[in-house]
Amino acid sequence: MAVYTQVSDEELARFATGHGLGELRSCKGIAEGVENTNYLIETVKGRFILTLYEKRVAPENLPFYLGLMEHLASKGIDCPLPVRDRDGEQVSEIAGRAAAIVTFLDGMSVRTPTPRHCALLGETLARMHLAGADYPRQLDNALGPQGWVQLYDRFKSRADEVLPGLSKLVEAEFSALLPGWPNRLPKGVIHADLFPDNVFFLGDRLSGVIDFYFACTDILAYDIAICINAWCFDAERRFVRENAAALVGGYRGVRPLTQEEGRAIPVLARGAALRFLLTRSHDWIATPKDAIVKPHDPGDYVARILQHRQMSKPADYGFED
Amino acid sequence: MAVYTQVSDEELARFATGHGLGELRSCKGIAEGVENTNYLIETVKGRFILTLYEKRVAPENLPFYLGLMEHLASKGIDCPLPVRDRDGEQVSEIAGRAAAIVTFLDGMSVRTPTPRHCALLGETLARMHLAGADYPRQLDNALGPQGWVQLYDRFKSRADEVLPGLSKLVEAEFSALLPGWPNRLPKGVIHADLFPDNVFFLGDRLSGVIDFYFACTDILAYDIAICINAWCFDAERRFVRENAAALVGGYRGVRPLTQEEGRAIPVLARGAALRFLLTRSHDWIATPKDAIVKPHDPGDYVARILQHRQMSKPADYGFED
Repeated sequence: MAVYTQVSDEELARFATGHGLGELRSCKGIAEGVENTNYLIETVKGRFILTLYEKRVAPENLPFYLGLMEHLASKGIDCPLPVRDRDGEQVSEIAGRAAAIVTFLDGMSVRTPTPRHCALLGETLARMHLAGADYPRQLDNALGPQGWVQLYDRFKSRADEVLPGLSKLVEAEFSALLPGWPNRLPKGVIHADLFPDNVFFLGDRLSGVIDFYFACTDILAYDIAICINAWCFDAERRFVRENAAALVGGYRGVRPLTQEEGRAIPVLARGAALRFLLTRSHDWIATPKDAIVKPHDPGDYVARILQHRQMSKPADYGFED
Repeated sequence: MAVYTQVSDEELARFATGHGLGELRSCKGIAEGVENTNYLIETVKGRFILTLYEKRVAPENLPFYLGLMEHLASKGIDCPLPVRDRDGEQVSEIAGRAAAIVTFLDGMSVRTPTPRHCALLGETLARMHLAGADYPRQLDNALGPQGWVQLYDRFKSRADEVLPGLSKLVEAEFSALLPGWPNRLPKGVIHADLFPDNVFFLGDRLSGVIDFYFACTDILAYDIAICINAWCFDAERRFVRENAAALVGGYRGVRPLTQEEGRAIPVLARGAALRFLLTRSHDWIATPKDAIVKPHDPGDYVARILQHRQMSKPADYGFED
């Protein structure tokens, strides 16, 4: 969300040349994505994003993420395409950081998604799931149910500083969700962080999906559940049923859901809300009160959990069957 | 240096339309300039920078800064051109902030300037001074000698926390510089913050000058003195005489300097170093120790002051006379 690492002009020019991109025309540090440093660079060959991976992305997982983008792009998904260097490598080093260059995607994120946006999102999500089916690499979801418990252990003694009663709420959710967490649903590559920030639109089409640094192998329908949390609540934290119905409709038009997947949506949506409540609460505690970049408000996800508790049927989420 | 204010997609689209720029194709928050929020936006009409003015820029001074850019651009200086809205205004409001849109400039900043860069810089600086001669607005330099004393008063009780002995050094500089500060040298519009970050190069030419938010009416030669501090010391804080000679040579080729201006350079350079030492020290104290965006190191300017103290003749700075 900021520029953590400065790159010298000489290093940058050498890096661009090493990737066959020619002379640089401009370079701007941009505020985007998870905790990486991103530069928008332009050369005679076009526009690219140079990412320097900071502490939050494990370097050993980069081949999974970058290989996935290349795989999906080759199947016609509008996602950034990593540019290999002259040695054929997707990852190299600049300014002491693992780094990669990917193509730039046009388009604008929306902050107040409409059913039309959600339908396009559902369609693209399903296309990504199908395109990922033959991706050969695997990566466990570090923020799946086991990860939630581990993460919570790191801050539970201070949980109630975030919001009074948070520890009680989290522990009740663990009890409600962990024992029956679905384990037989279709799995595959999921994006796992498909928030509106990570999706671009241009005119009437979805022009790009970015930020694959939480992608992993997990329950496909869990990706829908994450999108329900991310796209189907308004700024007043109210559930927007038309958005959810459009999202699910768009998805099913491309990849039909099994009855088991549909039935699991309420519990998956509640689990996804818990996952974001936990990471936001952790970041809330870890961020100094006077930091320039404010952490996301965990309260948004308390509200979602309370809402999900009242929605037990697939139909509540717009599943017609 | 970061994105402080988020702008909704609807507001942004309305703002772009209100400036006759058509449909947005992309928008990225960028880390650039003083403490404002900047977005790099692209529309069918090209690329632009949208700036939201945060606390550090006084809204009443915006007509001076933006009017200056328009004035200089009209005289062929490569600087951002403010885009007026449909009511003919350069400044409007977005997300509760005063805001302006200016044209985007191609080019790369250099981090290790060569004499060639400095010669181009000197030439452009002189062209800017000539082009500004008939700019009708005036604005006092808030960071001139009077401003230094006021700024120092705000943190002098804690000055030695920045560096041991800082208060003694600053007070010695006040005694040495304030009584004899030049008051009869040619004045005009100066940029007053022409650091390498604010100058772009493309191939063998200087392609742009940005960030006019410290511009003011002051001694023209003081702008050269600022550039000597900003461009003519290496990363090890050593004075690079060839850079200074090239800077001065480039400048004089366009705007000859009077003998008085040449003779004043040593004291102006020392004063400019004090100005940046004071602002950096102030920011050093004001910035929380764990902030993401680290303040500049004030020590760089202590080293410059010590160097300037040993250089009393114009020839020391590359003035052949």
